[in-house]
Amino acid sequence: MTKTMNVAMIGGGFMGKAHAMAYASMPMFFWPAPAIPHRKVVVDVSEEMAQDAQARFGFDEASTDWKATVHRDDIDVVDICTPNNVHAEIAIEAAKAGKHIICEKPLARTVEEAEAMAQAVRDAGVIHMVAYNYRRTPAVALAKRLISEGRIGDILNFRGTYLQDWSADPDGPLSWRFQKKVAGSGAIGDIGTHVVDMAHYLVGPVAEVNAITKTYVPTRPVQSGGVDKLGASEKTSGGQRGEVDVDDEFTSLLKFENGAVGSLEATRNGWGRNNFITFEIHGTKGSIHFNYERRDELKVFFADDPGDARGFRTIYTGPAHPYGEGLWPIPALGIGYSETKIIECHDFFKAIVIGEQPSPNFEDGLLIERVAEALIRSGTSGAWEAV
Amino acid sequence: MTKTMNVAMIGGGFMGKAHAMAYASMPMFFWPAPAIPHRKVVVDVSEEMAQDAQARFGFDEASTDWKATVHRDDIDVVDICTPNNVHAEIAIEAAKAGKHIICEKPLARTVEEAEAMAQAVRDAGVIHMVAYNYRRTPAVALAKRLISEGRIGDILNFRGTYLQDWSADPDGPLSWRFQKKVAGSGAIGDIGTHVVDMAHYLVGPVAEVNAITKTYVPTRPVQSGGVDKLGASEKTSGGQRGEVDVDDEFTSLLKFENGAVGSLEATRNGWGRNNFITFEIHGTKGSIHFNYERRDELKVFFADDPGDARGFRTIYTGPAHPYGEGLWPIPALGIGYSETKIIECHDFFKAIVIGEQPSPNFEDGLLIERVAEALIRSGTSGAWEAV
Amino acid sequence: MTKTMNVAMIGGGFMGKAHAMAYASMPMFFWPAPAIPHRKVVVDVSEEMAQDAQARFGFDEASTDWKATVHRDDIDVVDICTPNNVHAEIAIEAAKAGKHIICEKPLARTVEEAEAMAQAVRDAGVIHMVAYNYRRTPAVALAKRLISEGRIGDILNFRGTYLQDWSADPDGPLSWRFQKKVAGSGAIGDIGTHVVDMAHYLVGPVAEVNAITKTYVPTRPVQSGGVDKLGASEKTSGGQRGEVDVDDEFTSLLKFENGAVGSLEATRNGWGRNNFITFEIHGTKGSIHFNYERRDELKVFFADDPGDARGFRTIYTGPAHPYGEGLWPIPALGIGYSETKIIECHDFFKAIVIGEQPSPNFEDGLLIERVAEALIRSGTSGAWEAV
Amino acid sequence: MTKTMNVAMIGGGFMGKAHAMAYASMPMFFWPAPAIPHRKVVVDVSEEMAQDAQARFGFDEASTDWKATVHRDDIDVVDICTPNNVHAEIAIEAAKAGKHIICEKPLARTVEEAEAMAQAVRDAGVIHMVAYNYRRTPAVALAKRLISEGRIGDILNFRGTYLQDWSADPDGPLSWRFQKKVAGSGAIGDIGTHVVDMAHYLVGPVAEVNAITKTYVPTRPVQSGGVDKLGASEKTSGGQRGEVDVDDEFTSLLKFENGAVGSLEATRNGWGRNNFITFEIHGTKGSIHFNYERRDELKVFFADDPGDARGFRTIYTGPAHPYGEGLWPIPALGIGYSETKIIECHDFFKAIVIGEQPSPNFEDGLLIERVAEALIRSGTSGAWEAV
Repeated sequence: MTKTMNVAMIGGGFMGKAHAMAYASMPMFFWPAPAIPHRKVVVDVSEEMAQDAQARFGFDEASTDWKATVHRDDIDVVDICTPNNVHAEIAIEAAKAGKHIICEKPLARTVEEAEAMAQAVRDAGVIHMVAYNYRRTPAVALAKRLISEGRIGDILNFRGTYLQDWSADPDGPLSWRFQKKVAGSGAIGDIGTHVVDMAHYLVGPVAEVNAITKTYVPTRPVQSGGVDKLGASEKTSGGQRGEVDVDDEFTSLLKFENGAVGSLEATRNGWGRNNFITFEIHGTKGSIHFNYERRDELKVFFADDPGDARGFRTIYTGPAHPYGEGLWPIPALGIGYSETKIIECHDFFKAIVIGEQPSPNFEDGLLIERVAEALIRSGTSGAWEAV
Repeated sequence: MTKTMNVAMIGGGFMGKAHAMAYASMPMFFWPAPAIPHRKVVVDVSEEMAQDAQARFGFDEASTDWKATVHRDDIDVVDICTPNNVHAEIAIEAAKAGKHIICEKPLARTVEEAEAMAQAVRDAGVIHMVAYNYRRTPAVALAKRLISEGRIGDILNFRGTYLQDWSADPDGPLSWRFQKKVAGSGAIGDIGTHVVDMAHYLVGPVAEVNAITKTYVPTRPVQSGGVDKLGASEKTSGGQRGEVDVDDEFTSLLKFENGAVGSLEATRNGWGRNNFITFEIHGTKGSIHFNYERRDELKVFFADDPGDARGFRTIYTGPAHPYGEGLWPIPALGIGYSETKIIECHDFFKAIVIGEQPSPNFEDGLLIERVAEALIRSGTSGAWEAV
Repeated sequence: MTKTMNVAMIGGGFMGKAHAMAYASMPMFFWPAPAIPHRKVVVDVSEEMAQDAQARFGFDEASTDWKATVHRDDIDVVDICTPNNVHAEIAIEAAKAGKHIICEKPLARTVEEAEAMAQAVRDAGVIHMVAYNYRRTPAVALAKRLISEGRIGDILNFRGTYLQDWSADPDGPLSWRFQKKVAGSGAIGDIGTHVVDMAHYLVGPVAEVNAITKTYVPTRPVQSGGVDKLGASEKTSGGQRGEVDVDDEFTSLLKFENGAVGSLEATRNGWGRNNFITFEIHGTKGSIHFNYERRDELKVFFADDPGDARGFRTIYTGPAHPYGEGLWPIPALGIGYSETKIIECHDFFKAIVIGEQPSPNFEDGLLIERVAEALIRSGTSGAWEAV
Repeated sequence: MTKTMNVAMIGGGFMGKAHAMAYASMPMFFWPAPAIPHRKVVVDVSEEMAQDAQARFGFDEASTDWKATVHRDDIDVVDICTPNNVHAEIAIEAAKAGKHIICEKPLARTVEEAEAMAQAVRDAGVIHMVAYNYRRTPAVALAKRLISEGRIGDILNFRGTYLQDWSADPDGPLSWRFQKKVAGSGAIGDIGTHVVDMAHYLVGPVAEVNAITKTYVPTRPVQSGGVDKLGASEKTSGGQRGEVDVDDEFTSLLKFENGAVGSLEATRNGWGRNNFITFEIHGTKGSIHFNYERRDELKVFFADDPGDARGFRTIYTGPAHPYGEGLWPIPALGIGYSETKIIECHDFFKAIVIGEQPSPNFEDGLLIERVAEALIRSGTSGAWEAV
C-alpha cells in the first residue's frame, strides 16, 4: 500500500509552482509511486499570499508561520522554496523537527551556512535533497549512464556553460537575486551552481578553480514588492536605483580531482541565450554534448564507430532511456521544466521510502558551495583556489 | 470566486495521464484560473483498471460504467480519452446529458460519426473541444499571431510533416492503432490530423487533396491485452500475426480555399524521426518554420529586414509570447508535452466559463475528418478529391 | 604521362567562372589527374565580353564564333555554359565535330531538344555529361554509397526540396530565367531538375508525377543587358515590366519505378531559404537526411543501432568519404561550390580518358527532361502524368 | 592594365595546394583583379617532389633551392608553405631580397623568431601577410563589420574554441606537428593561434592569459617520410614510437586590453569535432555566434529587436556581405576552404598594389606569437601571464 506523506512547502513563488505541480503529478507518471505526496500546508510571507498559494497550488492549509509549521506532527516533508537567505534557518529547524527536507538551490548563501545545514541533517538523520533539477533531465541522466558504462572512455575535459539574458537589460529590476545579503552571490550561485552540480555528477569533484568574475550592471531600479518575476518583469528606466553587489558573470578554469580539466562559464549578460545550459565532455573513446535549450536531445560520439559513418548521434530520450518508463511513450513528445521537477520529486520520495540519501543531497550541496566560494575567491585573487 | 467543476474522465491510459496532470496543474499555472477542475470520476474497462487509475490520477471515484457516469448530476465535464471507436457513442450520450465535452483526437473514425457528434453537441448547446494539443504549443500560437498580424504577408505555401518511427519495426505489436474498426485510419487519423489542424489554424480550410497512401507493414504480432503502449512496447517476433488494415503513411498535395497550396506528409516508417511535427509556411513577406522536436523555438524570417542582417530568427518562446504569463518566467525553461496539455485544459475551461466555443471544437474536428476522408479517397482514386 | 586536353568554353558568366576555376584547380586536387584541362578558347556574345572572359578566366584565346570554335581541330572538349536556349544547337554541332561535351543543366528547354541532343552524342560516339554538380557533393555521394551497400535497406520514401528566395522580391529583374523561350521552364528546370537528378541517382527512375505549379510573380522589371546576376542583381521598382511565363514553384508527388514514393518541391518564393536543397530518404533499415546549406554534413540513422544510443549521426565528410582523398585532409575544412565543380571536372575527364560515359550524361539529362515535362503537364492537367 | 606578378612558392604540400588553387582562381572571382598572380617557381625538398608539385600546381619551374629562388629578379612574391621551422629563415632572406611575403601560420616557432621576421620586413619595406585564412570567411568578416558599426554595442565577452579530433587516436603518426623543434608548439600554435587571430580582429589585443595545457598522447608512431597528411594518415599501432613534446590541448582565460574578458580553448582530442572553430561574442546590445563547421552562416542577436520576435538570426552570407560581389551570386551556394584562400589571395595582392600592409601582417603575427608564448608560460606557471 503506497504511503501518503504530508508536505509543508515554504514559499509560493515560481519554485512553489513547480514543486506543487510535481507533488500533484508525480504519482501519475511514476506508478506505483514510492509515496503519494499530499499538499498539506503552504507558507508564505503574508496571509494574502499564503491563502492565494493555498488555493492556487491545492494545499489543505495556508500559514505565515513557517516555524510552527515545520514542527507540526502531521508534516513529513519540508520543502524550502524561499529566497536563499532563509534556507539555512528553515532547514536547520526542519531537521531539528525530524522532517525530511528538500531545499531549492543553491543550498545556502555561504559555505558556513551550508555546513551548518549539512550538520543539522546529519544529526537529525533525515533524508535531504538539494533541488538541482537540471541533472534530472533524461538526456543528462543518459550522459551519466553512458559515462558510467565507459562508453566514452576516461574523461579528459568538461566544458560547461550557463548563459542567460533575462537580466542583460540594465533597467531590469533589482530583485533579491542581485543582492548579496539575500542571494549570497550572483550568476555563480544562481545558475553556475547548476553546472557545477552536473560536473560533479558526470565527472567528479572539482579540486581547484581559477576565475574571472564581472559585475556588468552595477545598479538596477529598486523594485516594489518582494516578488521575483525574472524575465516576466517589466523594465523600468526611471526612479531610484540600488546597488548590485553580486557577480553578473564568471568565466573559469577547472581542475577535477581525477585529473580531468575544463572550463565553466555563466552569465546573465549573454544576449540571445535564455537558459543555455550546455556541456561538452571529451573522453578517450568518445564525446558527449548537451544543450538544455534542446533538452530532449543528447549528442554522443563514439570513436569506435566505423570511420565512414562516424558522427555525433542526436539521441532523443524516451522509453529506452533513464526515467523513460515513467514519462511519455515515445521520444520527443516533450521534456519540459515540469518533467524535470516530476522526476526530482520521484527520486526524493523514493529516497525517503528506501531510506537512502538521494543525490544531490546537502553534502553535495555543501561541496557545490565550496566550489562557488572558491570561484568568488579566485575572482578576487586572480589565482588558482583550492575547493 | 473561481468555480470548481467536476470532471468525469473516460479512459485511463496515456491520454488519461496527460489530462489528469493538466487538471491538477492548470490552476497552478493560469491563476486566477477560469475554473478549478475537480477529478471526480475516472472510468475504465475493468474494476481493476478503473481503481488503479483512480489512485494514480487522483480521482475521487472509479467506475466501469461510462454511461451512468456521464449522466450523473454532479458531473460538469466529460473527458473522452478512449480509443477512437467509442468517441462517438460516449460524446453523443454526454451531449444528451448536457455535459461539456473534451474529446481526444481524432474526433471519430469516420465523417459520419463526426457529423453525428457535431449534431449532438449543437443540439445540446454544450461546450466542446477536440484535443489537438500541438497547436497549443506556444511557438505554434506565436506563428498564428504573427500570421494574423500580417507579419509574413499573404500565405503562399504550407508544408507540413508528421514523421514517426515508433512502429517502423514490423514486429511492433498490433495495437488498436493499426485496426480500422477501432482507429478508423492509420497515420492519417492518428498523426496526420494534428497537422491538418495546424494547417486549418494557420492557413485556413483545405479545399482539395491529392494523396498517395501506403501500408508498409501488412501484419503485426497480435497483442495480448488492450493497453496501447506505443514506443514503450516490447517487440515480439514470434507468435500469431494479425492484419494491419490502415495506412502507415500518406504523402499529399493540398489546395486551400484561400488559394494557398502545400503539401502534407505523415508516416509511421520514418526511422529516426520521433515526433517530427513540422511546418514551413512561405508568405509574401516572410516565412515561418516550426519543428515540434525543438518546440521551444519558432523560426521566423522577415523579408523587410536589412539585406545584410536577414535570416531566420530562432525565437525561444517565453513570457513575451502566447500563454507566456501562465507558464515559466524565462524562455527555454522548457515546454514539454505537459505544458501543451495544461494550456489546452486552460482554454477549454475558459471557453466553458465565458460560454464561447473554443477552437478546435467538434465543428473543426468534423472538418478535419472530412480532410482525412478525402485523403483516404484520393489514396485510392489517385485523383484530386474535394474535402 | 598525363594528357593535356583543350577546352572551348561557350559562355563566360557565373557558370563560366565556376568551370574555369575547376579546369585550373582540378589537377591540384586529384593528382595524378586523369587529364590536364587546358583553357584554350572562351566564347561569348560580344568581343568585349569574350576578351574580358579570356583575361579573367585564363584562356589562351577569345572568340565570338562558337560554331567555328567547336569545329577547331585543336579543341578536345566543348563546355556549354550558356543560357538554356542554345544548349541544343551548340551541343549538336559539337557532337558533329566529334568533341566531348559537358553541358550545363538543364540539358535543354524541352524533351524534343534533349532527344535531339542525346541522339547527336550517340551518333557521334563522344563522351557527354550534364553538369548537375550538386550530386557530387561528397555528402550526397556518401548517401549513394550507403544506399548501395544496403545500409538503410529498401527505400520507401524520398522527400526532396529546393527552396530559394533570390527572386522572391517581385521587383527583381526579368532575367532570362523567367522567360520560357530562353529557359524552357522556371523553378522546374532551373532548380527542380537538380533534385530530380539526385532522386534518380539515389532512388532510381521516376515513373509518374502529380504536381501543382504556380507563378507568383507574373511580371518583373525588364532588365537592360543580358547578364544574369541572380541574387546579386539590384532591385528596380520603376520602369517597364515584362511577363514571367514560367513557373515560380511546384509541389509534387512522385512514384518511382521501383515502387518507392515521395514528394518533390521547388520554389523561388521561399523567403529565408537560399540554396536549400534537401532530401530525406526513409528506408526499411534507416534514414538519410541532407541539406546543401550545411553540405559538409550527412545525417544518417541506422535502425539497428542499440535502442538507447540511436539517433541521426551527423557525419562530416572528409578523407574517409567519397572524393575525400582528392579534397582536404580533414573533414569540415570546407566543401564549397568550388569543390563540387572540381569533382565534376574530375569525373568528366576521367570518363573521357577511360572511355566510359559518366553519370549524369545526356541520357540521364533527357530522362530528367521527361520528368520536368511531366511535372509541367501535371500542373495543367491536375492528374498523374507518366514520365 | 592589370599587372602580372610572379610567385615563388616554397613548399608543395596541403598548403601549397590551397595557395596554388587561389593563385589560379583569384582573378576569376575578383575581377578586375588587383594583380594577376603567376605561378613561376615552386620549391620543394627533393627534385622529385618539386617536379611533381610543378606539374600538379601549374608552375613554370621547379626548384630545390629556396634561397636562390627568393633572390631571383623575376620573382615578386615569396609564399612560404613549409613547416614552421623554416618560416623565419626563408622570410628573412626573402625580405632581404625585397620580395613581398605571404607566410603560412603560425608566423614562427617562437617570439624571438617572429621578432626577427617582423624586423626584417620592416627593414625591407615589403608587404607581408600571415595566412590566418579563417578570419576571411565571409561570415567572420560580417561579424567584424557588425561589431565595427556598433551593432552589438560594447564587447563584454569572447568565447573561442578550436576543437579537432584528427589526431585523437594515439596511433596517429608523429608528424612534424607534434615535434617542438619543428612546430614550436602543438594545439596552441597549430590551431589556437587562428582563434587568437580572430579575437584580435574582432575584439582587440589580448593583454593577459591564464591557461591549462595538456599533452594527452605522450608518444606516437614514428612516421616514414616527411609528408604530413593530417586526417588522411593511416593509423599504425606497431613499430617505434617517438615523443610528443608539444601540447595537445589548452584551456584558457583571456583579458583583453579594452577590458573585455573571455575564454579560449583548443584541442586535438575532441572526438567528433573536426574543424570546430567557434566564437560567441556578447556585447551590450547583442551577440554573435560563429561555427566554422557551418561557415556559410553567422548567427546574430540584436537586443533591440521587438521582444516577441527576438532571436538569433541565422544569416547566410552572400552578395550583400563582405567579399560577396567576388564570390557566388546567391548565399549558400557554398563557402569552402577554397573560397577562404581565394579571398586571402585577393587581399594580399590588393595590399601589394595599393602599398598598404594587409591584416594580419607580420606585426599581427608577432603579437599572436606573444599570446601563444604567454599561454605556454601560463600552462607551466599556473598564473596570469602578460602578453
